[in-house]
Amino acid sequence: MITRLDHIAVAVPDFAAAIARFRDDLGLELEGTEDVAAAQTQTAFFAVAAAHIELIHPLDGGGPVQGFLDKRGGGLHHLCFETDDILADMARLKAKGYRLLSEAPTVGAHGSLVVFIHPKSADGVLIELTQRSA
Amino acid sequence: MITRLDHIAVAVPDFAAAIARFRDDLGLELEGTEDVAAAQTQTAFFAVAAAHIELIHPLDGGGPVQGFLDKRGGGLHHLCFETDDILADMARLKAKGYRLLSEAPTVGAHGSLVVFIHPKSADGVLIELTQRSA
Repeated sequence: MITRLDHIAVAVPDFAAAIARFRDDLGLELEGTEDVAAAQTQTAFFAVAAAHIELIHPLDGGGPVQGFLDKRGGGLHHLCFETDDILADMARLKAKGYRLLSEAPTVGAHGSLVVFIHPKSADGVLIELTQRSA
Repeated sequence: MITRLDHIAVAVPDFAAAIARFRDDLGLELEGTEDVAAAQTQTAFFAVAAAHIELIHPLDGGGPVQGFLDKRGGGLHHLCFETDDILADMARLKAKGYRLLSEAPTVGAHGSLVVFIHPKSADGVLIELTQRSA
């Protein structure tokens, strides 16, 4: 029986730079690295606490998700990290050279404030930051 | 400060079919759905327990991850679910019409047994099943 989600894998062109990004910039705990010869792959594992899988589908046949589906037909779309101060994290990441998709947060699911980091700034991964409404 | 991974988003062409897949075929708990008008998006949230982010990079400059990087330059690669009986789940999912990438499990990270489900069977998402070694 399938018992749990084990991991989300991200393919990265620069292993050391990506480890630094997920540990230092996104604040995750690096558990360790392992070479998997059978898969010709280097791996690095980071612990993440309980989270969610979110399925997303266009509302009324338009919007950015429709554009993604038109191009790719479906697939893994983004990672979302929670923050307790979205404006401070936006400023911190901008100062590190990250490109944000908007100058100010917008409203996302559950009425939260959200902002997206451009995939070109993060190994091709679209990253969302979210701050819950108080 | 970034405090935690909140969710992994999957763009899906058929909302109802994808909800059924993640709930019935992959065994996750559906928490609810929400329309996010500001993003022109329908969303469905599933709870997942603590998991990991795995960065993957080619070992010795070859293998399937190198192929992915050559094509995409990096990005979200796959979801992995743990199972306590990989052979039973392979048979169950094959009977439901899922296409598996190998007839028998192979050896993955941590010495586990792994098998992959073809993205064409799952909304464009490459899905790995893993069974830990005893």
